[in-house]
Amino acid sequence: MVFNMLGKILLSMAALMVICVIISVFTGGRDLVALVLSDVIIAVIGVGLLMIRPTKASFYAKEGFAVVALSWILMSLLGALPFLLGGVFTSYIDAVFETASGFTTTGATVCGAIERIPHGIGFWRCLIIFIGGMGVLVFVMAVLPLSKERSMHIMRAEVPGPSVSKLVAKSKDSALILYAIYFVLMIIEAVLLMIGGMSPYTAFTTAMSTAGTGGFMVTDAGYIGQSTYLQVVAGVFMMLFAVNFNLYFYIILKKFGVAVKNEELRWFLLIYAGAVAIITVNVLPRFSSFGEALHHSAFNAASIYSTTGFASVDFDKWPTLSKCVLLLLMLLGGCAGSTAGGIKTSRVMILVKNGWNELRRLAHPKYVRTLRIDDKPVSEPVVRSVLVYFTAIMALTFLSILLVSIDGYSVESTVSSVFACIFNVGPGFGAVGPVENFAHMSALSKIVLALDMLIGRLEVWPMLLLFAPSTWRNRAAFR
Amino acid sequence: MVFNMLGKILLSMAALMVICVIISVFTGGRDLVALVLSDVIIAVIGVGLLMIRPTKASFYAKEGFAVVALSWILMSLLGALPFLLGGVFTSYIDAVFETASGFTTTGATVCGAIERIPHGIGFWRCLIIFIGGMGVLVFVMAVLPLSKERSMHIMRAEVPGPSVSKLVAKSKDSALILYAIYFVLMIIEAVLLMIGGMSPYTAFTTAMSTAGTGGFMVTDAGYIGQSTYLQVVAGVFMMLFAVNFNLYFYIILKKFGVAVKNEELRWFLLIYAGAVAIITVNVLPRFSSFGEALHHSAFNAASIYSTTGFASVDFDKWPTLSKCVLLLLMLLGGCAGSTAGGIKTSRVMILVKNGWNELRRLAHPKYVRTLRIDDKPVSEPVVRSVLVYFTAIMALTFLSILLVSIDGYSVESTVSSVFACIFNVGPGFGAVGPVENFAHMSALSKIVLALDMLIGRLEVWPMLLLFAPSTWRNRAAFR
Repeated sequence: MVFNMLGKILLSMAALMVICVIISVFTGGRDLVALVLSDVIIAVIGVGLLMIRPTKASFYAKEGFAVVALSWILMSLLGALPFLLGGVFTSYIDAVFETASGFTTTGATVCGAIERIPHGIGFWRCLIIFIGGMGVLVFVMAVLPLSKERSMHIMRAEVPGPSVSKLVAKSKDSALILYAIYFVLMIIEAVLLMIGGMSPYTAFTTAMSTAGTGGFMVTDAGYIGQSTYLQVVAGVFMMLFAVNFNLYFYIILKKFGVAVKNEELRWFLLIYAGAVAIITVNVLPRFSSFGEALHHSAFNAASIYSTTGFASVDFDKWPTLSKCVLLLLMLLGGCAGSTAGGIKTSRVMILVKNGWNELRRLAHPKYVRTLRIDDKPVSEPVVRSVLVYFTAIMALTFLSILLVSIDGYSVESTVSSVFACIFNVGPGFGAVGPVENFAHMSALSKIVLALDMLIGRLEVWPMLLLFAPSTWRNRAAFR
Repeated sequence: MVFNMLGKILLSMAALMVICVIISVFTGGRDLVALVLSDVIIAVIGVGLLMIRPTKASFYAKEGFAVVALSWILMSLLGALPFLLGGVFTSYIDAVFETASGFTTTGATVCGAIERIPHGIGFWRCLIIFIGGMGVLVFVMAVLPLSKERSMHIMRAEVPGPSVSKLVAKSKDSALILYAIYFVLMIIEAVLLMIGGMSPYTAFTTAMSTAGTGGFMVTDAGYIGQSTYLQVVAGVFMMLFAVNFNLYFYIILKKFGVAVKNEELRWFLLIYAGAVAIITVNVLPRFSSFGEALHHSAFNAASIYSTTGFASVDFDKWPTLSKCVLLLLMLLGGCAGSTAGGIKTSRVMILVKNGWNELRRLAHPKYVRTLRIDDKPVSEPVVRSVLVYFTAIMALTFLSILLVSIDGYSVESTVSSVFACIFNVGPGFGAVGPVENFAHMSALSKIVLALDMLIGRLEVWPMLLLFAPSTWRNRAAFR
């Protein structure tokens, strides 16, 4: 069962890589051999996995988690092949780090000379962000037939946020609708970027990167020094892709009221406005005008809060207050049901409201009030799972900081590198700042940070389950 | 009712200050006027508060929290008088910061020339750590008659840890026993320090400071450059005072088995051993021998883990790994029912075990297992309150980091200053490292950090309740 699923995923991956092969043919073909070879290897392994006979048909939450975690690891390991065979990286760990960073929409790079990557592989680098943003398995679900319960378990494991609300009765249809919205928005952004003077290659890779809130670009300078128009387009779309996609569905259904009244959206925009206000005032002396300060505050706050990771200036040089605001935005992340990372606004709402309720309960012991979001009560198990999620992600963050600190970078670089990876942002501060990259880190740190990206993207439990011995106790039930 | 309680507390404080007056008389009396004047002011305010007629006799959890929070704030405001009148500080904010730092057993200082403080005020500076360590209201409870429910509410608010276990049926007797153990241990340490060559004044102030896991010393260099014997004595006693005092009670009752089998103690020692091992290996190249590296690792890890804050070397110069281990130890803190700060080992146990249970439940949906500590089940409300406590203290930590970062110190200094204050440790890194102090910070940062100390010492809720509007809604019930 699990192998069957993995096989389908690898074959989908191989199919997607064909796009890159085509692009390679039309752009010189320097990377054609590497891409074709990788594609064949992945396809062969995929077919091999499909050949393994399924022994058990039932599919529970545990298998859902396992499939998701295993397939993301496999994708990172095999998706790295073009980078390695194409000579972009000489180290396999670097190639896997870059691939995991792409699939998880983190956008942390270990590549110092991005413009020297051939276009086929460069497209692959951004395509995996686009695929990873909405969820690789959700993609598989959208295109392949799957039973109803099975798809629900997968969506629960792969779609970010405290709870999954299906748009329509069937998960498969939900997945298709989501992908359609996602694709159309991406195309609109690419067109707008081309109007601003970007080449089709740069525009499409950038748009895919924005759509997944990833942050890879095909130019070394990224958004530093780009025109104001291009920065505004990217800034607006970064925020659009960090909003719960269900809202776009409501807008399509012309239920504007539901979309506008959405409580998570309001918190998201309020936090963003507050952060931009603080940063603008804080960085004002560094810019020639208020407008310029506001523009760059708004762009970089949007980039970090949506966990995309583009930079319009080297915000590592900003004052400590602005950097601390950005660190906090990394942690918070975008909305549930978007492609953003972080702990998600809806979880933050539940944590804050729950703390507030606790306070009232202490003051008035008879006080009983259910936690509500969008005027709907949030069940106690959901609140509890959010609390546990928060403690787990913080514990893993602290543990990762310890492991990365062995490298001996400054506390600021160490902490921000872990935040940037586990919350799927991309750039941090200091040695991993927006004009730096992760290439100089040790192999241990790269492995830890790559695992952090997967932990953050899959929201802790699938990855932990994979490493927990109790999952494997009943092995027979697992195949 | 509340005013009545506050009056009693101030009178107890005035009585304790008489000790300092006596010491002042015998040591030159430079600070005699300041101490007598402060003492009279505090006593007069205390009597004034006692005169306000109690209007309501019932005493609920809400009033318990309010009394504790209000009295700690009042103590910090009035306990600062000797420092101000004695000319130790010219700024009232500095004086309050130092007093709050003492009462909360933080040990963060804003005083750059400690040896110039007259002995009477110097003794007061360490006496408040000793009183604050066990709890000011617990002290009042031990010496004054109070009804049974009333004392339980107070112990719950003031004694650190997820739950209060009474040693004996009556809270008053429990408080007395705890204070007796505390006092005897302190005397033993003072005697051992005197044997090592310390003057009685230095030995007693240091012992009081260790007992409260505070970290004030009457010498500028602190433990840097002291003899190995003195460092070992302090190191051992720092760890002893970070252990749950109930264990000493069991030892007195000759129930050694119960004490040794205590699960929290085992976790505490295991974490300590792990931290010392990592730091020793990490700092080995900086010392001439393995023994020396082990000695200083063990001393400074004990100091930070027990949240005392002494330093035998300038650990700010240690590599990032060691500093990150120390930062984590700050967060963890000592055992519940000790004088240490941090989130407490028993809470860490509950968080870890709960995360583990969650993982097993995800893998095996039918898996139901109660969380157990010392083979006793931990009730679901306690687990939940620990989860909420953790999210609340982390949220307040992030918020404080934002406020302190306005000062523009490095991210490392900013983060470590908040950790050092909210977890009641004392020194941080960088600008607030062990050979630095907090004097150069802005008034805003000092106020935020002083509030953090109180929030940390009273474990979040009493302070938050005091500032929550809902507490004050029913004002009539409050007097």
